[in-house]
Amino acid sequence: MNAEIICVGTELLLGNIVNTNAAFIAERISRLGIGCYNQCVVGDNMDRCLSQLKESSSRSDIIILSGGLGPTEDDMTKEAVAAFTKLPLVEDAVSRRSIEEYFAKRGIEPTENNWKQALVPKGAKAVPNANGTAPGIILETKNCKYILLPGPPIELESMFDSQIMPYLQSLGAGSIFSRTVKIVGVGESKAETMIKDLIDSQDNPTIATYAKTAEVHIRVTAYGEDEKQARKLVKPVVKELKARFGSNVYSAEDEASLEQAIIELLDSNKMTMSTVESCTGGLVSSTVVGVPGASEVFKCGFVTYSNKSKRKLVGVKKGTLDKYGAVSRQVATEMAKGGAAVSKSDVCISVTGIAGPDGGTDEKPVGLVYIGCYVRGDVKVKEFHFSGNRNKVRSLSAKNALILARECILEYISKVNFG
Amino acid sequence: MNAEIICVGTELLLGNIVNTNAAFIAERISRLGIGCYNQCVVGDNMDRCLSQLKESSSRSDIIILSGGLGPTEDDMTKEAVAAFTKLPLVEDAVSRRSIEEYFAKRGIEPTENNWKQALVPKGAKAVPNANGTAPGIILETKNCKYILLPGPPIELESMFDSQIMPYLQSLGAGSIFSRTVKIVGVGESKAETMIKDLIDSQDNPTIATYAKTAEVHIRVTAYGEDEKQARKLVKPVVKELKARFGSNVYSAEDEASLEQAIIELLDSNKMTMSTVESCTGGLVSSTVVGVPGASEVFKCGFVTYSNKSKRKLVGVKKGTLDKYGAVSRQVATEMAKGGAAVSKSDVCISVTGIAGPDGGTDEKPVGLVYIGCYVRGDVKVKEFHFSGNRNKVRSLSAKNALILARECILEYISKVNFG
Repeated sequence: MNAEIICVGTELLLGNIVNTNAAFIAERISRLGIGCYNQCVVGDNMDRCLSQLKESSSRSDIIILSGGLGPTEDDMTKEAVAAFTKLPLVEDAVSRRSIEEYFAKRGIEPTENNWKQALVPKGAKAVPNANGTAPGIILETKNCKYILLPGPPIELESMFDSQIMPYLQSLGAGSIFSRTVKIVGVGESKAETMIKDLIDSQDNPTIATYAKTAEVHIRVTAYGEDEKQARKLVKPVVKELKARFGSNVYSAEDEASLEQAIIELLDSNKMTMSTVESCTGGLVSSTVVGVPGASEVFKCGFVTYSNKSKRKLVGVKKGTLDKYGAVSRQVATEMAKGGAAVSKSDVCISVTGIAGPDGGTDEKPVGLVYIGCYVRGDVKVKEFHFSGNRNKVRSLSAKNALILARECILEYISKVNFG
Repeated sequence: MNAEIICVGTELLLGNIVNTNAAFIAERISRLGIGCYNQCVVGDNMDRCLSQLKESSSRSDIIILSGGLGPTEDDMTKEAVAAFTKLPLVEDAVSRRSIEEYFAKRGIEPTENNWKQALVPKGAKAVPNANGTAPGIILETKNCKYILLPGPPIELESMFDSQIMPYLQSLGAGSIFSRTVKIVGVGESKAETMIKDLIDSQDNPTIATYAKTAEVHIRVTAYGEDEKQARKLVKPVVKELKARFGSNVYSAEDEASLEQAIIELLDSNKMTMSTVESCTGGLVSSTVVGVPGASEVFKCGFVTYSNKSKRKLVGVKKGTLDKYGAVSRQVATEMAKGGAAVSKSDVCISVTGIAGPDGGTDEKPVGLVYIGCYVRGDVKVKEFHFSGNRNKVRSLSAKNALILARECILEYISKVNFG
């Protein structure tokens, strides 16, 4: 069984946006063991869509299309698939109702073209969209299966994981199962070297490493006659990886994030946390608050962007700022201590740095960031030199703040328990 | 004249990397006014490369290929183009010399397969690579021009700008110019209805609408003999769009963001701002701080996730929390007022809501969010009902907080100036 991906959108052809949907879909279907030998992009143009559908349907069992399901005139993916398969478009009652509800909830009057989104090719199944008005569509024809997805990544990704993955799995004879071991504190090359013997001898399960922002993910994927058999093949390899990487592994769950691992760690140890951020401007706190249930653990955050706010909100001393400057080990220390004291939390993460593009000097260049972590009396501060633009420096800072926090919390717990 | 892009690489098909090369090349050639109607990805596979070359050469004047020029066995883009055009591969003396120099400089002994990189199809021109060993290739045949580029973005991008752009320009294409009018407070359907007459009569320039999170972008693109002529065609249409959407237009610059527009607005009126966030957890402040130069305007932010922190940090009254609950118009008002008072800022944005998945009730369901904005004495609060998952509710909240802030600041300025 093989699939191919057609992304529809003039903005892709003009290079206005990067095609993250293709990478997302490709990664998901490769996990399922479905072969994918072609990806393509066509504009919002009926003739070229039809010609691509002809080409694609001649070589692929499943065609996954993204984009062009919106309410406007230039959205015509659905119309192209209907024309190509010679099926009329009919209104899907459930989709119409959910569009009605979507607008009623917002107190907005839908315009005539909004109803266009409730149309599906006759015989197709509408797939509910939790994050927008355009439903997805699954259409099975004699030769080929068509899956139409909305273009905005936030809509596409959650629809794919919740509804398209189970559908694709239901098509397969065998079953693929994979788990991802997530690692911090080890680079990709080193991680690969540490498991070279496993990679070289891999067959089923297969092992692949992926470099993420300040993380390495190792995916173990097995194929079996059923899920149970595939799971059984994956289990010992995951166990071996956990043994090799020890506490650098923060999770072996696909859905888990580093911030979630930290929240769980704090929650199970009845500890609370806070943040004091300068250059990240709330990126650490908003990442933590993104975890459902963070309210059990996260008390409050301070964005102390100006020197004055560092002094006033978390009590950084004027003398320290004058002597060492806002971007210094000393100020990071006082920010973490002060934040913990004001918020009465057990853990406090601090970040102060120069994100650029301006503000760097020879002595303190753009990319210099100090990250601190207070845990019940002790503060650890690390100095980082990041490269990249402002956003890159800020996201690396936020990620490394979480990595340091996890490290400090683990050290504290192990000291209390064994030390 | 039209071109298409073929990116070669199994890692793209597996979704291990995002195809930034396609977006880069697409953006560059659209600037030159070269039409691009197709992009595709194929793996490192001779048969599928040949089949794609057949398809592509039947419809495009220029085929731009990236990737597969490396020294290893699975790199075969050059071999595929040579086979397809029936040209032998011959050694390019200049390329051989530069590979020799590259290795000599690094004190490394080249391996036999490194010399493979000096081969070009007979009659083709090698394009020096300033950042790696694989030269690019330009091959002109009777029907079609082939441009082969190395896969690593750092090599491809600098080669493209320094050598491929001048080559493409020399082929005598015209020029494309586009501007994007960015709008808040109007939905995509309504926006399209408001400019239906312009869209229906479009030819050159063309007009296209794009829905972004709580924004609509309208792109106006014109084709001219040179950039000056294209600009001249775009100008009156942008002016007309600005007139129709009035203060809903926050920018007509491609690079501009809503947060940047707010920073500029505050800066030019010598006003400062702060934030008090609950469910967004620092998303508003970190978005604002993401703008270079935000330090002139942004004073500080509070992430008051717990009730206690709402009281302690920004002085929300216990009575208000008890009577109305943390997610209420009254608390949003006190958060905005309190944040402005503590930080002594002119503007303060507040957000309090239920992001889910838990915490909702019949009376206050998940997705209910109050957003407040204080501007020098006055507070406006709006009630929102967002749908979607936790991240969607949070990102919609943050975006709408910025939209409300812009609205309130504009109202204040207009009142002071005219009222």
